Amino acid sequence: MNLILLDADEWQADGQAHIGDPRRLRHLCEVHRANPGDELTLGRLGGGIGRGRLAHLDAAGAWFECDALDQPPPPALDIELILALPRPRMLARSLEHVTALGVKRITLLHTRRVEKSYWQSPELHPDKIHQHLLLGLEQARDTVLPEVRLATRFKPFVEDCLADDIAGRRALLAHPGMPAACPRGLEEPATLLVGPEGGFIPYEVEQLLAAGCEGIHLGPRILRVETAVVALLARLG
Amino acid sequence: MNLILLDADEWQADGQAHIGDPRRLRHLCEVHRANPGDELTLGRLGGGIGRGRLAHLDAAGAWFECDALDQPPPPALDIELILALPRPRMLARSLEHVTALGVKRITLLHTRRVEKSYWQSPELHPDKIHQHLLLGLEQARDTVLPEVRLATRFKPFVEDCLADDIAGRRALLAHPGMPAACPRGLEEPATLLVGPEGGFIPYEVEQLLAAGCEGIHLGPRILRVETAVVALLARLG
Repeated sequence: MNLILLDADEWQADGQAHIGDPRRLRHLCEVHRANPGDELTLGRLGGGIGRGRLAHLDAAGAWFECDALDQPPPPALDIELILALPRPRMLARSLEHVTALGVKRITLLHTRRVEKSYWQSPELHPDKIHQHLLLGLEQARDTVLPEVRLATRFKPFVEDCLADDIAGRRALLAHPGMPAACPRGLEEPATLLVGPEGGFIPYEVEQLLAAGCEGIHLGPRILRVETAVVALLARLG
Repeated sequence: MNLILLDADEWQADGQAHIGDPRRLRHLCEVHRANPGDELTLGRLGGGIGRGRLAHLDAAGAWFECDALDQPPPPALDIELILALPRPRMLARSLEHVTALGVKRITLLHTRRVEKSYWQSPELHPDKIHQHLLLGLEQARDTVLPEVRLATRFKPFVEDCLADDIAGRRALLAHPGMPAACPRGLEEPATLLVGPEGGFIPYEVEQLLAAGCEGIHLGPRILRVETAVVALLARLG
């Protein structure tokens, strides 16, 4: 937690802030070992960041006196991610990684090799997703939540949504065996598509290429989805 | 498990192979849903890879008939990693990620902000480390184990070992606030140094720069160690 991220109801215009949830209080006590008078970085969800002094801390909450929270959060990464829904634990970690890296739009997509049961996972509950996004923001000192969208059917998504999604963007389909290596340091907005463990099936690859995606690979090594997503975003970004 | 990695005693020169450990048998049954006659990719630890047919599978083991396991594993990444010892769960995942990415030498280093208790973790037992390296190799279809070295004291390591370690290599110290951005697509051998959560302390940064390391940063976002290591290796590699 490199940033204490304040919801609208945790912050007042006069610079007083208060948090009361057990997770962050425990983190303040056990990891920061914070004491009254300590300076910490705070930010307003969707807004600016700045410094605040811990005025009081007890089991009921932490009270801060903040400077103007008027510094901008770090720039977003202009790469949108379309990711075949990973298994629940990998989803949780992947959401945190990509949020920390600055992705602002994440589409979780059904594909043939996504197990249908994954769509029933409690990890997909909006509250759980929100929690993982917050962890990613707190890590990277960002304040701007990514948008997460669920696309539970492959064909309608590709036929009805993908063209609009990638209009004006470079669309890159990461898939083993594609002819081109993953480009480095893109200068233009992009959309990155990453398949499930086991990959997209050939029909899906055909559909995505026909829809205007460019096939890229990351070399001969097969990586776990969470490793591949970070590696691809780091190389592209 | 994209590769069944055979120890010397699991493989015979006539192409017969046998595995009997519960972890891989369960994976074969539950994930691969393998049946006799199925073709799978096998490799010899430290040697080549190739295809094998599952001849028999029961609770006691799986028997394969292999072709010549004579294809080379994927090329190694010529980047060595010197990593401040992460907390145990992050260590486990980081070892898998960097092994899958092809790193062949990993030094786990003590620094001021590494909690001393981490050195007592069961995750540092050679058998546990070996297990995580195997998981990384199985993922990436590699056969060549990385060497893992423990450097439990910072100053002796920097004074007595680092110069030899980085001779003929580009040594890159990843640390927030360093003046240069992380370079992309290195052509030369390199050694990457990554600090703990909370970073190297200023004294350590000074010592590492004085020892010939070049300071680099990955932008304004603070990343978890496991995310940062993958992002740095992907950008450098």
